[in-house]
Amino acid sequence: MKLPIALSNRHVHLSQADIEALFGAGHELTHFKPLSQPGQFACDEKIDLVGPKGTIKGVRVLGPARPSTQVEISLADGFALGVKAPVRQSGDVAGSPGVKLVGPAGEVELAEGVIVASRHIHMSLEDAANFGVEDKQIVSVRTFGPRAVVFENVLVRANEAFALEMHVDVEEGNAAGVKNGEEVELIK
Amino acid sequence: MKLPIALSNRHVHLSQADIEALFGAGHELTHFKPLSQPGQFACDEKIDLVGPKGTIKGVRVLGPARPSTQVEISLADGFALGVKAPVRQSGDVAGSPGVKLVGPAGEVELAEGVIVASRHIHMSLEDAANFGVEDKQIVSVRTFGPRAVVFENVLVRANEAFALEMHVDVEEGNAAGVKNGEEVELIK
Repeated sequence: MKLPIALSNRHVHLSQADIEALFGAGHELTHFKPLSQPGQFACDEKIDLVGPKGTIKGVRVLGPARPSTQVEISLADGFALGVKAPVRQSGDVAGSPGVKLVGPAGEVELAEGVIVASRHIHMSLEDAANFGVEDKQIVSVRTFGPRAVVFENVLVRANEAFALEMHVDVEEGNAAGVKNGEEVELIK
Repeated sequence: MKLPIALSNRHVHLSQADIEALFGAGHELTHFKPLSQPGQFACDEKIDLVGPKGTIKGVRVLGPARPSTQVEISLADGFALGVKAPVRQSGDVAGSPGVKLVGPAGEVELAEGVIVASRHIHMSLEDAANFGVEDKQIVSVRTFGPRAVVFENVLVRANEAFALEMHVDVEEGNAAGVKNGEEVELIK
């Protein structure tokens, strides 16, 4: 029941309209490096987040473009920005706060879409069968070492396009003292 | 088996010699507010930490003065400073890295003393008897809510001078989604 863990740093997914507002008309995201999930990639593009209490500079854009813009930050980032971001699964942004996005070619006043990503496990349907779990099942995950923790309320996301990996944010990863690629244990 | 949790932000304990080097000859720490542990207090004084990769400004000094200077940061702070701070119990600083401390009246090149404080529970001897645990025992602690976790490897520190409270750093607290004073559960 072992799988690798990965720490997601703060990042932004952008709609094509917002890409063009921030980086210029007709702009397309450039590949910096592939991510573990097939088709996803880190971009060369970075933007600044400007909230009522502070600014976070140089936040990485992840591609490809999405139907709507979403900002994923940590709770600490939310305090620094002055934005009360809820812990949510990706895509569940209804009623979440906005923030100002600042790029080299312009700004976007995002009305909503700032969340703290809820921890989850990506896996293929074959992985799910091997683990004996189903898409949307809630499981726990144990980490190892001096800062060992058991994360409860971990969502399984099983899809034929997914590669096996647990995603936590940087605060969760550091709290557990784990590094990218380290093995953790799924507990049903 | 319930007790309150508290999140410790980055802070510095200073020796009297370093207080005077940073704030001027004869300087004594000023009380800003009392902390939960009897006799401990947050000071008005703040300093900057300067590491090989970055600076963290405005780090709060905690009083009273101690025999030796100790800097307590998060793993994320360590990355930002470029300092590889080990996870250690307070006072266990042998072989830990140093950092430059900058105050309004001078600087101190600290040779060692930068740690990430290991999570622990302060309690009185009476609390220890009530919980059925002993000083230096290792226990687990469960938190509640959407980001519920079980922290393993939690050190009990039982002393007649201590007030009942679990201490975690900000990353651990945010990873669990807990706030200061929230109740958590000791698990033997």
